[in-house]
Amino acid sequence: VTEPAADAGQEALGPGREFDVIRALLARWSGVARGVGDDGAVLDIPAGSRLVASIDTSVEGVHFRRDWLTVHEIGYRSTASALSDLAAMAARPLGILLALSIPADALDDAPALGDGVGQAARDAGCAIVGGDTTRGDRLALTVAVLGHASAPVRRSGARPGDRVYVTGRLGAAAAAVAALARGETPPAALRERFAHPVPRIAEAQWLAAHGVSAMIDISDGLVSELRHLAAASGVAITVELEQVPVAGDVRPAAAAVSGEEYELLVTSPRELDAASFFRVFALPLTDIGRVGDGAGGVVTTTHQGERVDPGAGYDHFSP
Amino acid sequence: VTEPAADAGQEALGPGREFDVIRALLARWSGVARGVGDDGAVLDIPAGSRLVASIDTSVEGVHFRRDWLTVHEIGYRSTASALSDLAAMAARPLGILLALSIPADALDDAPALGDGVGQAARDAGCAIVGGDTTRGDRLALTVAVLGHASAPVRRSGARPGDRVYVTGRLGAAAAAVAALARGETPPAALRERFAHPVPRIAEAQWLAAHGVSAMIDISDGLVSELRHLAAASGVAITVELEQVPVAGDVRPAAAAVSGEEYELLVTSPRELDAASFFRVFALPLTDIGRVGDGAGGVVTTTHQGERVDPGAGYDHFSP
Repeated sequence: VTEPAADAGQEALGPGREFDVIRALLARWSGVARGVGDDGAVLDIPAGSRLVASIDTSVEGVHFRRDWLTVHEIGYRSTASALSDLAAMAARPLGILLALSIPADALDDAPALGDGVGQAARDAGCAIVGGDTTRGDRLALTVAVLGHASAPVRRSGARPGDRVYVTGRLGAAAAAVAALARGETPPAALRERFAHPVPRIAEAQWLAAHGVSAMIDISDGLVSELRHLAAASGVAITVELEQVPVAGDVRPAAAAVSGEEYELLVTSPRELDAASFFRVFALPLTDIGRVGDGAGGVVTTTHQGERVDPGAGYDHFSP
Repeated sequence: VTEPAADAGQEALGPGREFDVIRALLARWSGVARGVGDDGAVLDIPAGSRLVASIDTSVEGVHFRRDWLTVHEIGYRSTASALSDLAAMAARPLGILLALSIPADALDDAPALGDGVGQAARDAGCAIVGGDTTRGDRLALTVAVLGHASAPVRRSGARPGDRVYVTGRLGAAAAAVAALARGETPPAALRERFAHPVPRIAEAQWLAAHGVSAMIDISDGLVSELRHLAAASGVAITVELEQVPVAGDVRPAAAAVSGEEYELLVTSPRELDAASFFRVFALPLTDIGRVGDGAGGVVTTTHQGERVDPGAGYDHFSP
């Protein structure tokens, strides 16, 4: 355990149990927390860059279960998934703000949760610049991410004729959840992908530098995200399921609807050098389809030339 | 009801009940929502300005009750209180990100809640630039606020000899809550201050331009906030309770511990022109005490020269 540094942020905190929780978190965040303790964090955006910001909530029982993941993993995962939205815009992370709702019976978990948040922030080269702690019936983490990009890549730039690429291998998250739901222990590699997703920040920089036309990250499943991208761009997209790169022995149709992957989906007017991408990141970059000029938002999935329906994506409000 | 504009943000949204909620909110936010629908919002910080960011959560049963406030007021209040943190740094608001946790039985309240959030954003001249919606057992709003300031005013700049000023009149929020807790209807003026707090954004610009040395907003009560400011500045502060400006017939000692006021507390090395401030904002600016060189963080309250204890501030984690 790192002792809290005697910085202005901590001296600024007053008495009370709320501040005890904040102090415990700051003690774990030595070196990663910066400027905490005033009404607002102060950050500088590099000249020529634009601010990119997003917010993401993870709620116990909706997005995670404490019997499936350690609290360290819950902290890591919630933070990494929020940072993935910066990657999806080709933004570099500057700082995160963490709003933590914590039930009375989980107060003792705050340090381990903080360690997970801190580790994900460190892994992304990102500071923790502020937060708020409140009581709540369920553990919930809301992470606001702040980043900068000289040329943010949006969902709306795909054009007919573009190729469709995806990073990494899909399906591990859904396979891990399915195993946990059956009361089984998922294979270690699949569980690790689920517990410690990687925001593809450096990969997004490479893709933006190589002229991709649109980008989105996979939180709701490949097919759902392609629909969002196709709708925003006013194009149709066809994906060949047999081209979808899968984790382990996951079926391509299952991989195509696996959520919370946090891999990147991009469209590109030019062929991308997947071999070069792999040499840099040790990660596949796979051509899985084409952008067409059909009705905006329509995604067609095929298997060996035949249309197939891999199923619907994930919706938090569905019964 | 304003019909949703056919903008890129809404076209970008996919199917499902989560997106129905988002669509309903965007329909109410015509003109105030900007750039919603991509993975992140893109904003520009004016040249020479720094980014100021903060996050604030309001949870049902902790920060508000649905039998005390309308959902419109809950939306307004949660947003205004978050924006108050920008005021406290002398920052001008740029945009807010709203993370909404909504129980199934409150889905129909989303439009009115959205109206309240939208009105508070409009009143502050601030766009709604992104958000997230999730299921939850309790209604909870987490608002991340993004602003900019050329010279943010911090809590840590108070120096011995400085005067201590407060804006507005204190005590309405606590008096309204006390009446509601007794099952009574608070006087309209007190209830209005509680339901529609005003982030003192323009007032903070005036104060910063007039050289204040430290600033904080009153969310936990005047005495608690003075302790935070005194601790951050490494100074002691003495407040004369009989000088504390009160709302209605609230006692000064009660006003001094009334939370969620969202008035500003500042220290100034020079006398401030309260008459000029009042002419501009129709709001009192009152000299209530002095900064001393005693032990850092100590706040002494006096009444006609005698030390008195107005009681402790509010702590979300206290039993």
